Amino acid sequence: MTAVGAPAARTFTLTLSCPDRVGIVAAVAGFLAGHGGWIVESSNHADAGSGWFFTRQVVLADSLPFDRAELVRRFADIADRFAMQWQVSDSAEPKRAVVLVSLQDHCLYDLLHRWKARDFAFDIACVISNHDTLRGFVEWHGIPYFHVPVTADNGEAAHAEVLRLYREHRGDVMVLARYMRILPPAVCAALPGRILNIHHSFLPSFVGARPYHQAYERGVKLIGATCHYVSEELDAGPIVEQDVIRVDHGDSVEEMVKYGRDIERTVLARGLRYHCEDRVLLHGNKTIVFR
Amino acid sequence: MTAVGAPAARTFTLTLSCPDRVGIVAAVAGFLAGHGGWIVESSNHADAGSGWFFTRQVVLADSLPFDRAELVRRFADIADRFAMQWQVSDSAEPKRAVVLVSLQDHCLYDLLHRWKARDFAFDIACVISNHDTLRGFVEWHGIPYFHVPVTADNGEAAHAEVLRLYREHRGDVMVLARYMRILPPAVCAALPGRILNIHHSFLPSFVGARPYHQAYERGVKLIGATCHYVSEELDAGPIVEQDVIRVDHGDSVEEMVKYGRDIERTVLARGLRYHCEDRVLLHGNKTIVFR
Amino acid sequence: MTAVGAPAARTFTLTLSCPDRVGIVAAVAGFLAGHGGWIVESSNHADAGSGWFFTRQVVLADSLPFDRAELVRRFADIADRFAMQWQVSDSAEPKRAVVLVSLQDHCLYDLLHRWKARDFAFDIACVISNHDTLRGFVEWHGIPYFHVPVTADNGEAAHAEVLRLYREHRGDVMVLARYMRILPPAVCAALPGRILNIHHSFLPSFVGARPYHQAYERGVKLIGATCHYVSEELDAGPIVEQDVIRVDHGDSVEEMVKYGRDIERTVLARGLRYHCEDRVLLHGNKTIVFR
Amino acid sequence: MTAVGAPAARTFTLTLSCPDRVGIVAAVAGFLAGHGGWIVESSNHADAGSGWFFTRQVVLADSLPFDRAELVRRFADIADRFAMQWQVSDSAEPKRAVVLVSLQDHCLYDLLHRWKARDFAFDIACVISNHDTLRGFVEWHGIPYFHVPVTADNGEAAHAEVLRLYREHRGDVMVLARYMRILPPAVCAALPGRILNIHHSFLPSFVGARPYHQAYERGVKLIGATCHYVSEELDAGPIVEQDVIRVDHGDSVEEMVKYGRDIERTVLARGLRYHCEDRVLLHGNKTIVFR
Repeated sequence: MTAVGAPAARTFTLTLSCPDRVGIVAAVAGFLAGHGGWIVESSNHADAGSGWFFTRQVVLADSLPFDRAELVRRFADIADRFAMQWQVSDSAEPKRAVVLVSLQDHCLYDLLHRWKARDFAFDIACVISNHDTLRGFVEWHGIPYFHVPVTADNGEAAHAEVLRLYREHRGDVMVLARYMRILPPAVCAALPGRILNIHHSFLPSFVGARPYHQAYERGVKLIGATCHYVSEELDAGPIVEQDVIRVDHGDSVEEMVKYGRDIERTVLARGLRYHCEDRVLLHGNKTIVFR
Repeated sequence: MTAVGAPAARTFTLTLSCPDRVGIVAAVAGFLAGHGGWIVESSNHADAGSGWFFTRQVVLADSLPFDRAELVRRFADIADRFAMQWQVSDSAEPKRAVVLVSLQDHCLYDLLHRWKARDFAFDIACVISNHDTLRGFVEWHGIPYFHVPVTADNGEAAHAEVLRLYREHRGDVMVLARYMRILPPAVCAALPGRILNIHHSFLPSFVGARPYHQAYERGVKLIGATCHYVSEELDAGPIVEQDVIRVDHGDSVEEMVKYGRDIERTVLARGLRYHCEDRVLLHGNKTIVFR
Repeated sequence: MTAVGAPAARTFTLTLSCPDRVGIVAAVAGFLAGHGGWIVESSNHADAGSGWFFTRQVVLADSLPFDRAELVRRFADIADRFAMQWQVSDSAEPKRAVVLVSLQDHCLYDLLHRWKARDFAFDIACVISNHDTLRGFVEWHGIPYFHVPVTADNGEAAHAEVLRLYREHRGDVMVLARYMRILPPAVCAALPGRILNIHHSFLPSFVGARPYHQAYERGVKLIGATCHYVSEELDAGPIVEQDVIRVDHGDSVEEMVKYGRDIERTVLARGLRYHCEDRVLLHGNKTIVFR
Repeated sequence: MTAVGAPAARTFTLTLSCPDRVGIVAAVAGFLAGHGGWIVESSNHADAGSGWFFTRQVVLADSLPFDRAELVRRFADIADRFAMQWQVSDSAEPKRAVVLVSLQDHCLYDLLHRWKARDFAFDIACVISNHDTLRGFVEWHGIPYFHVPVTADNGEAAHAEVLRLYREHRGDVMVLARYMRILPPAVCAALPGRILNIHHSFLPSFVGARPYHQAYERGVKLIGATCHYVSEELDAGPIVEQDVIRVDHGDSVEEMVKYGRDIERTVLARGLRYHCEDRVLLHGNKTIVFR
């Protein structure tokens, strides 16, 4: 069997964006080096059009003489000087995903496997569904399951309950893993850049309902899946990841639905991994993804 | 150097579509076998939704005791019985492409190379452009070049001239190889299923002008190209072939334009090959492509 | 939620291979049409090099006036005349997979989901492992689990027991879903064209142990997975399906192992689907796959 | 037509590798910022296994108060302190490619188009061939063409002449664009990391002659192409770029040869672009490619 190395060392990940100017990298790297910080990953992006700068620095926790809180305190001066939007995360505190599902469970199987196999660092805080059918499978994995029925009339109240559960379980990211209800604007607004959805088309093609039917009708030769952050406008939020697979004239809508699952699960999983590893920075309605 | 075999044997290619029912393949294969016809390729598609049947049969010419004209004459009975739309082509008469270009020449370089290298069986009857800049390159290859200027006012007359040249040079298929003018409805209507365009996006996303700019603005993670038959509605005709390549936040519009050329040329070339090898059958606004 | 149509109609699938000559399709299609057989899928392949012909015909069971046994009886004459290797399967009797696993469970999760979601028609007769760790998960799905320990000394005896279990549970295909033991020659020889393995490299690169380590050392820019039939020579049997994903200098062996799982599970699942749908015909050490 | 922006601003590109330790990025970025250097692209890679660090920094030339020579002079102190292997290139001096071809011209067509279309910054210093057949096409583009015949006996002398021409025309990189002769060890040794080859297989599969024949015989489901630096061992040098396309049982060797050209040309062109944009750093027999 393939041996999968020693546990990864504890790291702090600093991500930031600010107006671009001379000296940002020098200041950040100088600060870290001044405290002995050993950088294991470093990515930068300067967006010429908007004049904005983005960076992600991963530092070995043990190389610094202080903890995350002190790192944040000391870095604040530099952050102020460059008007940075920034955050520091700690690999010892993996992000907690709250997963929403309906009846289709291919993404759920996939996420539960990745969580169990430590495919990347994240926890599943709980699973919430508008149906009760997947309770047994989720609870078998030792993960709490909540059934929040959604009717034509109770959308706002039901999703207020979803949001309450998310907070009660200290969610860091909400994952719509083929959840077939539309979140009300209040929930979208409460968690900007924190709700990941998998849409079963190559956006911006085939927004909305039954995208495989739309794809079949148009006669496209590739079908796709898109992982994006949820915003108040349906299927229009910042795109994190996309992929496609080939279909042909012999494939019915039902077959497209089945083949599409293979990219839905991998695209959602990649998007969630990027998010949980702090690889995604928002830039208006677009994303920087430091892979 | 790789030896690329003996010249392919002469073949007749029969393509047909008709309402599906029991006995079509038996009738077609029985007819061919009754005359000693040796089938080297055979593809079938039954479309359950529409109840329509499609087939493509490639027969060795030498295995039949008669020529194409007699084959057509004798097959007519079966065709009538099953209400077939059908045609028979002869590999000894490769299709003649009339290629339209503007200033960008990546598809033109590619098509000229494929023609010269006998990548697949087709001839380039002539090249027509609304500019005169590519004359030297085309004429160096021994291919006639026509400059038909198109202004804001003369679109109909100019394209009537294009159509006249197409017919004078006995075109079988018109190839818009990054031709940046819109064909008037009369030309589209005159050549249904005979005009191939390469659109520089993954249709139906980003119809119309400047698709790479649209893709950049939307922040997609893959860009595409689409080869489709031209119909009167812009970028809405039957899709023949599509492909995509990955881009990321670091790619400017200019870079997308450059990277996109790589899929534009291969997608157009594949679409043209499928057309010239009689692999494409129309089915409403969709295509059957027997690859 | 996406509605996934009515249950598919019952079909018989006839697959055959024989020396190529004039009249095979005519005879087969004529036979079927003569009994009113409605063909819903039909694929053919003539291999020019070897002079061998292959076909797969899917017929609606209800369109024929007899059952599978009678179909087989009546077809035997034609089969004899053309010296065919042939078989007829019935969609009402889905193939029974016996799945072998070790400790890694990504392919197992994937196969169990596909079985539960009826992704394609197959049953999981039982799961056999050289470890006992996955018992709970498998049994939760209501599938029998057998622990057959394999030591350095008992390989032949242990796998004789595996073969006995396969037969006891009426297996049609054995699936090595990241099973990390090598089957003894006697088992390979007992089930030719019936054992599918997933190898975690793009064969023929990186045969044998630790292929991701080999890939890392060589510095390849894509890693792959290969689904193949098991033969007595290690990793050298007929290839059914392959795929690749991109890696770069930043990816460690551990990350390659993780990313590779995504293609291992889809490639194995596609290979198994092709097998269970009778899409794969053997031709020496190669496969015809009628997708 | 798509407008492809203003000409890119002049830049200096600093690439370096050295043993990893705390403070490298701080020193480099601090040096550049201290002189007002505006960084437009910045990529870093720390190789944990070997303890080696790699970086590529692209700086606007106009943001510095001195030219390339002075930049080199001043940076030498830092380079010494960290024991760096390093170089600085100037976008005003695009790399000069010397292209070697035999009879197949698909890569040549592609490279000439990219040069003419300014697809990326490079010049073609001259084309050298062991045949005289492509002279006209190359000279039409205004590029010098040299015919250096290679026989069974004169390999060393002929390639000494090739090397002389490379130097006379001030080549920066030698590109084997389907050149079908093997370079003698003396030439390989003279230009380490400066000779790019396109091999028509997915290395390490199918080393040596007739890789498509080998692929056909093995029955692989994808064929590939590999761009690598030439070393003295055949097809074993550091890999820069690879890609694959799908084939199936219906594809003959001849068709694989034809389809393979599409990836050969794009893979070679991508490899050359990475090289000319100083994106490739060597690390033993592997490459870091900062895309």
